[in-house]
Amino acid sequence: MNYRLLLQYDGTDFRGWQIQANLRTVQGELTRVLSLLDDREVTVHGSGRTDAGVHAEGQVANVHLRREISPEKLRSAINGNLDDDLRVLSVEVAAEDFHARYSATGKTYRYRVLHGPVMSPFWRRYAIHESRHLDLDKMRNCAKLLLGEHDWTAFSSAQSDVESRVRTVAQMEVTRGSNDCVNGDLIDFTISADGFLRYMVRSIIGTLLAVGRNEINEATVERAIKEGDRSLAGSTAPAHGLTLVGVEY
Amino acid sequence: MNYRLLLQYDGTDFRGWQIQANLRTVQGELTRVLSLLDDREVTVHGSGRTDAGVHAEGQVANVHLRREISPEKLRSAINGNLDDDLRVLSVEVAAEDFHARYSATGKTYRYRVLHGPVMSPFWRRYAIHESRHLDLDKMRNCAKLLLGEHDWTAFSSAQSDVESRVRTVAQMEVTRGSNDCVNGDLIDFTISADGFLRYMVRSIIGTLLAVGRNEINEATVERAIKEGDRSLAGSTAPAHGLTLVGVEY
Repeated sequence: MNYRLLLQYDGTDFRGWQIQANLRTVQGELTRVLSLLDDREVTVHGSGRTDAGVHAEGQVANVHLRREISPEKLRSAINGNLDDDLRVLSVEVAAEDFHARYSATGKTYRYRVLHGPVMSPFWRRYAIHESRHLDLDKMRNCAKLLLGEHDWTAFSSAQSDVESRVRTVAQMEVTRGSNDCVNGDLIDFTISADGFLRYMVRSIIGTLLAVGRNEINEATVERAIKEGDRSLAGSTAPAHGLTLVGVEY
Repeated sequence: MNYRLLLQYDGTDFRGWQIQANLRTVQGELTRVLSLLDDREVTVHGSGRTDAGVHAEGQVANVHLRREISPEKLRSAINGNLDDDLRVLSVEVAAEDFHARYSATGKTYRYRVLHGPVMSPFWRRYAIHESRHLDLDKMRNCAKLLLGEHDWTAFSSAQSDVESRVRTVAQMEVTRGSNDCVNGDLIDFTISADGFLRYMVRSIIGTLLAVGRNEINEATVERAIKEGDRSLAGSTAPAHGLTLVGVEY
Protein backbone atom coordinates (compact mmCIF):
# COMPACT_ATOMS: atom_id res chain seq x y z
CA MET A 1 0.00 0.00 0.00
CA ASN A 2 1.14 3.50 -0.83
CA TYR A 3 0.51 5.86 2.08
CA ARG A 4 0.54 9.64 1.77
CA LEU A 5 1.53 11.57 4.91
CA LEU A 6 0.88 15.21 5.77
CA LEU A 7 3.67 16.36 8.10
CA GLN A 8 4.53 19.25 10.39
CA TYR A 9 7.88 19.92 11.96
CA ASP A 10 9.69 22.55 13.94
CA GLY A 11 12.98 22.51 12.05
CA THR A 12 15.05 23.99 14.89
CA ASP A 13 16.47 20.71 16.14
CA PHE A 14 16.68 18.87 12.80
CA ARG A 15 19.60 18.87 10.39
CA GLY A 16 17.15 19.29 7.56
CA TRP A 17 14.97 16.77 5.70
CA GLN A 18 17.44 14.45 4.04
CA ILE A 19 18.56 11.29 5.80
CA GLN A 20 22.19 11.41 6.95
CA ALA A 21 24.18 8.98 9.07
CA ASN A 22 24.38 9.98 12.75
CA LEU A 23 22.43 13.22 12.26
CA ARG A 24 18.87 13.85 13.33
CA THR A 25 16.87 14.58 10.18
CA VAL A 26 13.16 14.47 9.37
CA GLN A 27 13.51 11.78 6.71
CA GLY A 28 15.80 9.86 9.06
CA GLU A 29 13.27 9.91 11.90
CA LEU A 30 10.40 8.85 9.63
CA THR A 31 12.50 6.10 8.04
CA ARG A 32 13.44 4.75 11.47
CA VAL A 33 9.83 4.60 12.68
CA LEU A 34 8.29 3.30 9.43
CA SER A 35 10.98 0.64 8.96
CA LEU A 36 10.24 -0.55 12.49
CA LEU A 37 6.51 -0.73 11.71
CA ASP A 38 7.02 -2.58 8.42
CA ASP A 39 9.78 -4.89 9.69
CA ARG A 40 12.14 -3.90 6.87
CA GLU A 41 14.04 -0.90 5.61
CA VAL A 42 11.57 1.36 3.78
CA THR A 43 12.14 4.49 1.70
CA VAL A 44 10.28 7.67 2.62
CA HIS A 45 9.86 10.10 -0.27
CA GLY A 46 9.37 13.78 0.55
CA SER A 47 8.03 16.49 -1.75
CA GLY A 48 11.50 17.98 -1.55
CA ARG A 49 14.33 18.61 0.85
CA THR A 50 14.10 21.36 3.40
CA ASP A 51 17.40 22.77 4.67
CA ALA A 52 18.56 22.57 8.28
CA GLY A 53 16.45 24.90 10.43
CA VAL A 54 13.58 25.26 7.93
CA HIS A 55 10.11 24.40 9.28
CA ALA A 56 7.08 22.76 7.70
CA GLU A 57 3.40 23.29 8.38
CA GLY A 58 2.38 21.07 5.44
CA GLN A 59 5.17 18.86 4.08
CA VAL A 60 3.98 15.81 2.13
CA ALA A 61 5.66 12.42 1.95
CA ASN A 62 4.76 8.96 0.74
CA VAL A 63 5.88 5.49 1.68
CA HIS A 64 5.07 1.99 0.37
CA LEU A 65 4.38 -0.48 3.18
CA ARG A 66 3.86 -4.25 2.92
CA ARG A 67 1.69 -4.09 5.98
CA GLU A 68 -1.95 -3.05 5.56
CA ILE A 69 -3.03 -0.75 8.33
CA SER A 70 -5.82 1.81 8.62
CA PRO A 71 -4.70 5.42 8.07
CA GLU A 72 -5.75 6.45 11.60
CA LYS A 73 -3.85 3.60 13.21
CA LEU A 74 -0.79 4.30 11.10
CA ARG A 75 -0.87 7.95 12.14
CA SER A 76 -1.07 7.03 15.83
CA ALA A 77 1.66 4.42 15.50
CA ILE A 78 4.04 6.88 13.82
CA ASN A 79 3.31 9.79 16.17
CA GLY A 80 3.67 7.52 19.18
CA ASN A 81 7.27 6.85 18.14
CA LEU A 82 8.32 10.42 17.30
CA ASP A 83 9.41 13.36 19.43
CA ASP A 84 6.90 16.20 19.63
CA ASP A 85 8.71 18.48 17.17
CA LEU A 86 7.62 16.19 14.29
CA ARG A 87 4.00 15.16 13.79
CA VAL A 88 2.00 13.32 11.17
CA LEU A 89 -1.22 15.33 10.82
CA SER A 90 -3.00 12.87 8.57
CA VAL A 91 -2.50 9.70 6.57
CA GLU A 92 -4.29 8.71 3.37
CA VAL A 93 -4.10 5.68 1.14
CA ALA A 94 -2.76 7.00 -2.19
CA ALA A 95 -2.74 5.66 -5.74
CA GLU A 96 0.12 3.23 -6.31
CA ASP A 97 1.90 5.68 -8.61
CA PHE A 98 1.61 8.70 -6.32
CA HIS A 99 5.07 10.10 -5.58
CA ALA A 100 5.42 13.00 -3.14
CA ARG A 101 8.15 14.60 -5.24
CA TYR A 102 7.38 13.74 -8.86
CA SER A 103 3.61 14.21 -8.55
CA ALA A 104 3.93 17.68 -7.00
CA THR A 105 2.76 20.58 -9.18
CA GLY A 106 3.58 23.44 -6.85
CA LYS A 107 4.69 24.55 -3.42
CA THR A 108 4.06 27.45 -1.09
CA TYR A 109 6.56 28.84 1.38
CA ARG A 110 6.18 31.53 4.02
CA TYR A 111 9.03 33.64 5.39
CA ARG A 112 8.47 35.57 8.61
CA VAL A 113 10.21 38.75 9.73
CA LEU A 114 9.56 40.38 13.08
CA HIS A 115 9.95 44.08 12.38
CA GLY A 116 10.37 46.03 15.60
CA PRO A 117 12.92 47.20 18.14
CA VAL A 118 13.10 44.00 20.25
CA MET A 119 12.78 40.35 19.14
CA SER A 120 9.99 38.29 20.67
CA PRO A 121 11.00 35.20 22.70
CA PHE A 122 7.96 33.49 21.16
CA TRP A 123 8.98 34.11 17.54
CA ARG A 124 12.76 33.68 17.82
CA ARG A 125 12.60 30.16 16.35
CA TYR A 126 10.19 30.95 13.50
CA ALA A 127 11.00 34.48 12.34
CA ILE A 128 14.07 36.62 11.84
CA HIS A 129 14.43 39.99 13.52
CA GLU A 130 14.77 43.28 11.66
CA SER A 131 14.90 46.50 13.66
CA ARG A 132 15.96 48.79 10.80
CA HIS A 133 13.54 50.73 8.62
CA LEU A 134 11.76 48.61 5.99
CA ASP A 135 9.81 50.13 3.11
CA LEU A 136 6.90 47.74 2.61
CA ASP A 137 5.71 49.38 -0.59
CA LYS A 138 9.12 49.04 -2.21
CA MET A 139 9.26 45.37 -1.25
CA ARG A 140 5.77 44.83 -2.67
CA ASN A 141 6.60 46.53 -5.96
CA CYS A 142 9.76 44.51 -6.30
CA ALA A 143 7.86 41.30 -5.49
CA LYS A 144 5.58 42.01 -8.49
CA LEU A 145 8.62 42.17 -10.79
CA LEU A 146 9.56 38.67 -9.76
CA LEU A 147 6.22 37.10 -10.62
CA GLY A 148 6.04 34.81 -13.62
CA GLU A 149 8.48 32.59 -15.50
CA HIS A 150 12.16 33.43 -15.10
CA ASP A 151 15.55 31.82 -15.07
CA TRP A 152 16.41 31.99 -11.35
CA THR A 153 20.17 31.46 -11.65
CA ALA A 154 20.88 34.68 -9.73
CA PHE A 155 18.73 33.42 -6.86
CA SER A 156 20.02 29.91 -6.34
CA SER A 157 22.99 27.95 -5.12
CA ALA A 158 25.88 27.95 -7.62
CA GLN A 159 26.53 24.28 -6.86
CA SER A 160 23.06 23.01 -7.64
CA ASP A 161 23.26 20.77 -10.63
CA VAL A 162 19.82 20.96 -12.22
CA GLU A 163 18.86 20.76 -15.87
CA SER A 164 16.88 23.96 -15.93
CA ARG A 165 16.76 26.95 -13.63
CA VAL A 166 13.50 28.20 -15.10
CA ARG A 167 10.63 28.28 -12.62
CA THR A 168 7.27 30.06 -12.61
CA VAL A 169 6.39 32.06 -9.52
CA ALA A 170 2.59 32.31 -9.30
CA GLN A 171 2.31 34.31 -6.06
CA MET A 172 4.57 36.57 -4.05
CA GLU A 173 2.85 38.57 -1.33
CA VAL A 174 4.18 40.78 1.41
CA THR A 175 1.66 41.18 4.23
CA ARG A 176 1.56 42.29 7.81
CA GLY A 177 0.86 39.03 9.61
CA SER A 178 -2.46 38.44 11.29
CA ASN A 179 -0.82 37.38 14.54
CA ASP A 180 -0.91 40.19 17.02
CA CYS A 181 2.53 40.78 18.38
CA VAL A 182 3.22 43.57 20.84
CA ASN A 183 6.86 43.66 19.75
CA GLY A 184 6.14 45.16 16.35
CA ASP A 185 4.87 43.92 13.01
CA LEU A 186 5.15 40.37 11.93
CA ILE A 187 5.72 40.61 8.17
CA ASP A 188 4.85 37.51 6.14
CA PHE A 189 6.32 36.83 2.72
CA THR A 190 4.27 34.17 0.92
CA ILE A 191 5.70 32.63 -2.26
CA SER A 192 4.15 29.97 -4.50
CA ALA A 193 5.80 28.44 -7.55
CA ASP A 194 5.75 25.28 -9.65
CA GLY A 195 9.09 24.45 -8.07
CA PHE A 196 12.04 26.03 -6.28
CA LEU A 197 15.79 25.81 -6.70
CA ARG A 198 17.99 25.37 -3.67
CA TYR A 199 18.17 28.61 -1.60
CA MET A 200 15.78 30.28 -4.06
CA VAL A 201 13.22 31.46 -1.48
CA ARG A 202 15.87 32.61 0.97
CA SER A 203 17.75 34.49 -1.81
CA ILE A 204 14.54 36.19 -2.92
CA ILE A 205 13.77 37.19 0.68
CA GLY A 206 17.31 38.45 1.27
CA THR A 207 16.95 40.55 -1.88
CA LEU A 208 13.50 41.91 -0.99
CA LEU A 209 14.73 42.87 2.50
CA ALA A 210 17.73 44.67 0.97
CA VAL A 211 15.26 46.53 -1.28
CA GLY A 212 13.15 47.38 1.78
CA ARG A 213 16.23 48.81 3.50
CA ASN A 214 17.09 50.84 0.34
CA GLU A 215 20.31 48.94 -0.21
CA ILE A 216 19.34 47.54 -3.62
CA ASN A 217 16.99 49.17 -6.10
CA GLU A 218 14.43 47.62 -8.42
CA ALA A 219 16.55 48.13 -11.53
CA THR A 220 19.33 46.05 -10.00
CA VAL A 221 16.92 43.25 -9.18
CA GLU A 222 15.66 43.27 -12.78
CA ARG A 223 19.23 43.09 -14.02
CA ALA A 224 20.03 40.23 -11.60
CA ILE A 225 17.20 38.19 -13.09
CA LYS A 226 17.98 39.04 -16.73
CA GLU A 227 21.71 38.52 -16.44
CA GLY A 228 21.61 35.63 -13.96
CA ASP A 229 24.21 37.44 -11.89
CA ARG A 230 24.22 36.31 -8.26
CA SER A 231 26.42 39.23 -7.19
CA LEU A 232 23.56 41.63 -7.98
CA ALA A 233 21.06 39.84 -5.73
CA GLY A 234 20.88 40.17 -1.94
CA SER A 235 22.28 37.70 0.54
CA THR A 236 20.56 34.44 1.51
CA ALA A 237 18.17 35.06 4.43
CA PRO A 238 18.58 32.78 7.49
CA ALA A 239 16.92 29.36 7.41
CA HIS A 240 14.86 29.64 10.59
CA GLY A 241 12.49 32.30 9.18
CA LEU A 242 11.33 29.88 6.47
CA THR A 243 8.35 27.51 6.61
CA LEU A 244 7.05 25.16 3.92
CA VAL A 245 3.33 25.88 4.10
CA GLY A 246 1.99 23.38 1.62
CA VAL A 247 2.48 21.25 -1.48
CA GLU A 248 0.04 21.14 -4.37
CA TYR A 249 -0.72 18.05 -6.45
CA MET B 1 16.51 56.03 39.83
CA ASN B 2 13.57 53.63 39.80
CA TYR B 3 13.26 51.84 36.45
CA ARG B 4 10.17 50.00 35.32
CA LEU B 5 10.71 47.11 32.91
CA LEU B 6 8.23 45.43 30.58
CA LEU B 7 9.35 41.83 30.08
CA GLN B 8 8.64 38.84 27.86
CA TYR B 9 9.84 35.32 28.43
CA ASP B 10 9.37 31.84 27.07
CA GLY B 11 9.10 29.99 30.39
CA THR B 12 10.09 26.58 28.97
CA ASP B 13 13.71 26.70 30.08
CA PHE B 14 13.26 28.70 33.31
CA ARG B 15 12.59 27.30 36.74
CA GLY B 16 10.01 30.02 37.26
CA TRP B 17 10.36 33.67 38.25
CA GLN B 18 11.81 33.56 41.74
CA ILE B 19 15.56 33.67 42.24
CA GLN B 20 17.03 30.38 43.49
CA ALA B 21 20.62 29.31 43.97
CA ASN B 22 22.03 27.30 41.04
CA LEU B 23 18.76 27.32 39.10
CA ARG B 24 18.01 29.37 36.01
CA THR B 25 15.13 31.69 36.89
CA VAL B 26 13.85 34.94 35.36
CA GLN B 27 14.49 37.01 38.47
CA GLY B 28 17.89 35.37 38.79
CA GLU B 29 18.89 36.27 35.23
CA LEU B 30 17.71 39.88 35.60
CA THR B 31 19.44 40.22 38.98
CA ARG B 32 22.70 38.94 37.52
CA VAL B 33 22.63 41.38 34.59
CA LEU B 34 21.40 44.43 36.53
CA SER B 35 23.85 43.86 39.41
CA LEU B 36 26.63 43.77 36.83
CA LEU B 37 25.43 47.04 35.29
CA ASP B 38 25.08 48.79 38.67
CA ASP B 39 28.29 47.38 40.19
CA ARG B 40 26.46 46.06 43.24
CA GLU B 41 23.84 43.50 44.19
CA VAL B 42 20.42 44.92 43.26
CA THR B 43 16.92 43.63 43.98
CA VAL B 44 14.54 43.12 41.07
CA HIS B 45 10.86 43.25 42.05
CA GLY B 46 8.36 41.46 39.83
CA SER B 47 4.59 41.94 39.73
CA GLY B 48 4.40 38.41 41.10
CA ARG B 49 5.99 35.01 40.73
CA THR B 50 5.27 32.85 37.75
CA ASP B 51 5.71 29.10 38.24
CA ALA B 52 8.22 26.99 36.34
CA GLY B 53 7.15 26.64 32.71
CA VAL B 54 4.73 29.60 32.73
CA HIS B 55 5.34 32.25 30.05
CA ALA B 56 4.96 36.03 30.03
CA GLU B 57 4.05 38.38 27.21
CA GLY B 58 3.82 41.37 29.57
CA GLN B 59 5.44 40.82 32.97
CA VAL B 60 6.39 44.03 34.81
CA ALA B 61 9.34 44.51 37.15
CA ASN B 62 11.11 47.44 38.78
CA VAL B 63 14.64 48.01 40.01
CA HIS B 64 16.39 50.90 41.75
CA LEU B 65 19.77 51.67 40.21
CA ARG B 66 22.42 54.11 41.45
CA ARG B 67 23.54 54.59 37.90
CA GLU B 68 21.63 57.06 35.71
CA ILE B 69 21.19 55.72 32.24
CA SER B 70 18.68 56.47 29.48
CA PRO B 71 15.83 53.94 29.23
CA GLU B 72 16.81 52.96 25.67
CA LYS B 73 20.43 52.36 26.63
CA LEU B 74 19.40 50.39 29.69
CA ARG B 75 17.13 48.20 27.56
CA SER B 76 19.95 47.49 25.10
CA ALA B 77 22.44 46.82 27.88
CA ILE B 78 20.13 44.32 29.58
CA ASN B 79 19.06 42.53 26.38
CA GLY B 80 22.67 42.32 25.23
CA ASN B 81 23.44 40.24 28.32
CA LEU B 82 20.44 37.91 28.24
CA ASP B 83 19.64 34.78 26.26
CA ASP B 84 16.94 35.18 23.63
CA ASP B 85 14.17 33.51 25.63
CA LEU B 86 14.02 36.57 27.93
CA ARG B 87 13.66 40.11 26.57
CA VAL B 88 13.09 43.57 27.98
CA LEU B 89 10.54 45.16 25.65
CA SER B 90 10.72 48.63 27.14
CA VAL B 91 12.15 50.58 30.05
CA GLU B 92 10.62 53.65 31.70
CA VAL B 93 11.74 55.86 34.55
CA ALA B 94 9.10 55.35 37.26
CA ALA B 95 8.10 57.33 40.35
CA GLU B 96 10.36 56.55 43.32
CA ASP B 97 7.54 54.75 45.13
CA PHE B 98 6.45 52.58 42.19
CA HIS B 99 6.63 48.91 43.14
CA ALA B 100 5.87 46.27 40.50
CA ARG B 101 4.09 44.07 43.03
CA TYR B 102 2.46 46.42 45.54
CA SER B 103 1.37 49.02 42.97
CA ALA B 104 -0.37 46.42 40.76
CA THR B 105 -4.16 46.64 40.63
CA GLY B 106 -4.84 43.69 38.37
CA LYS B 107 -3.45 41.01 36.10
CA THR B 108 -4.51 39.17 32.98
CA TYR B 109 -3.56 35.61 32.13
CA ARG B 110 -4.20 33.56 29.01
CA TYR B 111 -4.37 29.78 28.90
CA ARG B 112 -4.14 28.05 25.53
CA VAL B 113 -5.54 24.66 24.57
CA LEU B 114 -5.04 23.11 21.16
CA HIS B 115 -8.23 21.15 20.54
CA GLY B 116 -7.79 18.65 17.73
CA PRO B 117 -6.57 15.16 16.91
CA VAL B 118 -2.83 15.90 16.66
CA MET B 119 -0.72 18.42 18.61
CA SER B 120 1.11 21.09 16.63
CA PRO B 121 4.94 21.16 16.87
CA PHE B 122 4.63 24.97 16.85
CA TRP B 123 2.30 25.16 19.84
CA ARG B 124 3.69 22.35 21.98
CA ARG B 125 5.54 24.80 24.25
CA TYR B 126 2.69 27.30 24.63
CA ALA B 127 -0.53 25.30 24.67
CA ILE B 128 -1.74 21.98 26.03
CA HIS B 129 -3.29 19.36 23.78
CA GLU B 130 -6.85 18.09 24.14
CA SER B 131 -8.18 15.60 21.59
CA ARG B 132 -11.35 14.63 23.47
CA HIS B 133 -14.71 16.33 22.96
CA LEU B 134 -15.00 19.76 24.61
CA ASP B 135 -18.33 21.54 25.03
CA LEU B 136 -17.47 25.21 24.56
CA ASP B 137 -20.90 26.46 25.62
CA LYS B 138 -20.73 24.57 28.89
CA MET B 139 -17.28 26.00 29.61
CA ARG B 140 -18.53 29.51 28.81
CA ASN B 141 -21.55 29.18 31.07
CA CYS B 142 -19.42 27.88 33.89
CA ALA B 143 -16.91 30.71 33.36
CA LYS B 144 -19.74 33.20 33.97
CA LEU B 145 -20.47 31.59 37.35
CA LEU B 146 -16.93 32.28 38.43
CA LEU B 147 -17.01 36.00 37.69
CA GLY B 148 -17.01 38.41 40.61
CA GLU B 149 -15.79 38.34 44.19
CA HIS B 150 -15.31 34.90 45.74
CA ASP B 151 -13.22 33.06 48.27
CA TRP B 152 -10.99 30.96 45.99
CA THR B 153 -9.85 28.41 48.58
CA ALA B 154 -11.07 25.52 46.42
CA PHE B 155 -8.95 26.80 43.53
CA SER B 156 -5.60 27.42 45.18
CA SER B 157 -2.65 25.66 46.73
CA ALA B 158 -3.41 24.34 50.23
CA GLN B 159 0.04 25.43 51.37
CA SER B 160 -0.28 29.05 50.35
CA ASP B 161 -0.18 31.15 53.47
CA VAL B 162 -2.08 34.31 52.57
CA GLU B 163 -4.27 36.47 54.78
CA SER B 164 -7.27 36.39 52.51
CA ARG B 165 -8.30 34.11 49.68
CA VAL B 166 -10.91 36.54 48.41
CA ARG B 167 -10.25 37.83 44.91
CA THR B 168 -12.43 39.53 42.30
CA VAL B 169 -12.41 38.05 38.81
CA ALA B 170 -13.40 40.78 36.35
CA GLN B 171 -13.15 38.81 33.12
CA MET B 172 -13.19 35.18 32.12
CA GLU B 173 -13.59 34.49 28.43
CA VAL B 174 -13.40 31.34 26.39
CA THR B 175 -12.70 32.06 22.73
CA ARG B 176 -11.54 30.27 19.66
CA GLY B 177 -8.11 31.82 19.11
CA SER B 178 -7.52 34.11 16.17
CA ASN B 179 -4.38 32.21 15.17
CA ASP B 180 -5.12 29.93 12.27
CA CYS B 181 -3.97 26.46 13.05
CA VAL B 182 -4.54 23.59 10.66
CA ASN B 183 -4.38 21.11 13.53
CA GLY B 184 -7.70 22.13 15.05
CA ASP B 185 -8.97 24.97 17.20
CA LEU B 186 -6.74 26.96 19.44
CA ILE B 187 -8.98 27.76 22.42
CA ASP B 188 -7.96 30.77 24.51
CA PHE B 189 -9.06 31.22 28.12
CA THR B 190 -8.52 34.83 29.20
CA ILE B 191 -8.83 35.66 32.91
CA SER B 192 -8.43 39.04 34.61
CA ALA B 193 -8.61 39.65 38.35
CA ASP B 194 -7.36 42.07 41.00
CA GLY B 195 -5.00 39.32 42.08
CA PHE B 196 -4.47 35.59 41.91
CA LEU B 197 -3.64 32.93 44.48
CA ARG B 198 -1.00 30.33 43.71
CA TYR B 199 -2.28 27.77 41.11
CA MET B 200 -5.58 29.68 40.91
CA VAL B 201 -5.64 30.13 37.12
CA ARG B 202 -4.47 26.59 36.47
CA SER B 203 -7.08 25.16 38.89
CA ILE B 204 -9.83 27.19 37.23
CA ILE B 205 -8.71 25.97 33.79
CA GLY B 206 -8.48 22.35 34.97
CA THR B 207 -12.03 22.71 36.29
CA LEU B 208 -13.42 24.37 33.14
CA LEU B 209 -11.85 21.66 30.96
CA ALA B 210 -13.41 18.95 33.17
CA VAL B 211 -16.76 20.74 32.70
CA GLY B 212 -16.16 20.83 28.93
CA ARG B 213 -15.54 17.07 28.94
CA ASN B 214 -18.73 16.51 31.00
CA GLU B 215 -16.78 15.17 33.96
CA ILE B 216 -17.90 17.89 36.40
CA ASN B 217 -21.18 19.77 36.27
CA GLU B 218 -21.94 23.42 37.02
CA ALA B 219 -23.61 22.66 40.35
CA THR B 220 -20.43 20.98 41.61
CA VAL B 221 -18.36 24.00 40.61
CA GLU B 222 -20.77 26.27 42.51
CA ARG B 223 -20.46 24.04 45.56
CA ALA B 224 -16.67 24.01 45.29
CA ILE B 225 -16.62 27.80 45.47
CA LYS B 226 -19.19 28.08 48.27
CA GLU B 227 -17.73 25.33 50.43
CA GLY B 228 -14.07 25.99 49.62
CA ASP B 229 -13.65 22.28 48.94
CA ARG B 230 -10.67 21.53 46.72
CA SER B 231 -11.77 17.95 46.15
CA LEU B 232 -14.80 19.22 44.19
CA ALA B 233 -12.72 21.27 41.75
CA GLY B 234 -10.83 19.88 38.75
CA SER B 235 -7.13 19.14 38.64
CA THR B 236 -4.46 21.79 38.13
CA ALA B 237 -3.83 22.28 34.39
CA PRO B 238 -0.17 22.01 33.22
CA ALA B 239 2.04 25.09 33.55
CA HIS B 240 3.17 25.40 29.93
CA GLY B 241 -0.30 26.39 28.63
CA LEU B 242 -0.27 29.51 30.81
CA THR B 243 0.95 33.00 29.85
CA LEU B 244 0.90 36.19 31.91
CA VAL B 245 -0.46 38.65 29.34
CA GLY B 246 -0.28 41.89 31.29
CA VAL B 247 -0.29 43.72 34.61
CA GLU B 248 -2.49 46.72 35.33
CA TYR B 249 -1.43 49.66 37.55
